[in-house]
Amino acid sequence: MTLGRLLGVGVGPGDPELLTLKAVRILREGPVVAYVSAGGRPSMARSIVAEHLSSGSPEIHIALPMRLVPELAHAAYDEGAARIGAVLERGRDVAVLCMGDPFLYGSFAQLFERLGERYRTEVVPGVASFTAAAAAARTPLVGRSETLAVLPATLPRDALATHLAGADGVAILKLGRHLAKVRTVLSELGLLERAIYVEHASAADERVVRLADLAIDQAPYFSLLLLPPAP
Amino acid sequence: MTLGRLLGVGVGPGDPELLTLKAVRILREGPVVAYVSAGGRPSMARSIVAEHLSSGSPEIHIALPMRLVPELAHAAYDEGAARIGAVLERGRDVAVLCMGDPFLYGSFAQLFERLGERYRTEVVPGVASFTAAAAAARTPLVGRSETLAVLPATLPRDALATHLAGADGVAILKLGRHLAKVRTVLSELGLLERAIYVEHASAADERVVRLADLAIDQAPYFSLLLLPPAP
Repeated sequence: MTLGRLLGVGVGPGDPELLTLKAVRILREGPVVAYVSAGGRPSMARSIVAEHLSSGSPEIHIALPMRLVPELAHAAYDEGAARIGAVLERGRDVAVLCMGDPFLYGSFAQLFERLGERYRTEVVPGVASFTAAAAAARTPLVGRSETLAVLPATLPRDALATHLAGADGVAILKLGRHLAKVRTVLSELGLLERAIYVEHASAADERVVRLADLAIDQAPYFSLLLLPPAP
Repeated sequence: MTLGRLLGVGVGPGDPELLTLKAVRILREGPVVAYVSAGGRPSMARSIVAEHLSSGSPEIHIALPMRLVPELAHAAYDEGAARIGAVLERGRDVAVLCMGDPFLYGSFAQLFERLGERYRTEVVPGVASFTAAAAAARTPLVGRSETLAVLPATLPRDALATHLAGADGVAILKLGRHLAKVRTVLSELGLLERAIYVEHASAADERVVRLADLAIDQAPYFSLLLLPPAP
């Protein structure tokens, strides 16, 4: 029997209209859909594509533990990959739904690592959150010979500072509980005024505000900072 | 009379199926479309959306000179912006078609700079070429706490070397006639083996090959290199 295909489907930053035609077509072909969510929260990726899923079709929900202890996350991906593999063995395609793009900080890499050698894999790229954020902020990210650094806020202070010093345009992702640390680093480098905070880019509750005017110290996971190149 | 809206519409990397639902909806609403092309070549962005345009609708073609002398390019953008402005003044929307994403190395920034203050602007983000290239190469670009550097191949050798040394994952865009220079820098840094060359990602003539196996010294404009993080 032909094995099913492992499909990594980027669903974009939040607005269901930022799905690609290809993602919609693939989902309407009726694969089993799979998605990852942490801490018992509903999957944002699944809610973005909900209208394109046929009701009653089986779904694979990979629930990561609340506290992301590496061993527990590892075990959850192992178990999720096994469930996906079982469907692929029966010849049915599985579409793993990924916020943004599957190969940019996505949990899809975890599943691809476990399944990509045995099963034919196709990846549908998606609109990345930081370009949606630039659109929301009406700010060109980079042009001409400028460089762009995409940095996770989880980096230690020193590493953040080094990367910030070298790049023209910067996007800092995964802010969450790292916002206070990032703010301190930016402030020390005199970059606070250039930073724009964008929460839930392109979604209904999108929010754009200068970091200097932001009064919170803890941000949602799907928030980021943009630093357009100095003029 | 209400002024028209300036729309920056990302059309993605090449595959017409990687258009977003939003881009398609906006184009089907019948704005005047505008696009930039250089050296008398046909616009790739226009060919991607061709099936969604109504025939007979006026179009604005901004032709950049073959040799991109800054003053001549400047004058072409000035003239293009004036033509777009004239349409917006009559209350009609203008959709500027942009390969990839409008705010990532797009010529849209040139028009936005000239028109964005007077006219209401909306930007529709698109799938970036380098994520489509990662999908084509079946290679995760970055995960966890890794950093991504997006670098234009137009940078001088020293700058390229500095940025390459500091980042985990790297995408080098706009290869064109800079391929030989970039290859030399990568070779000197011992990074040649890690580099993957992707031409026309997601398009019908997509091509993926290890840089070490690539025999050419000059590449098309829409080609790039990916360096996934070291394992």
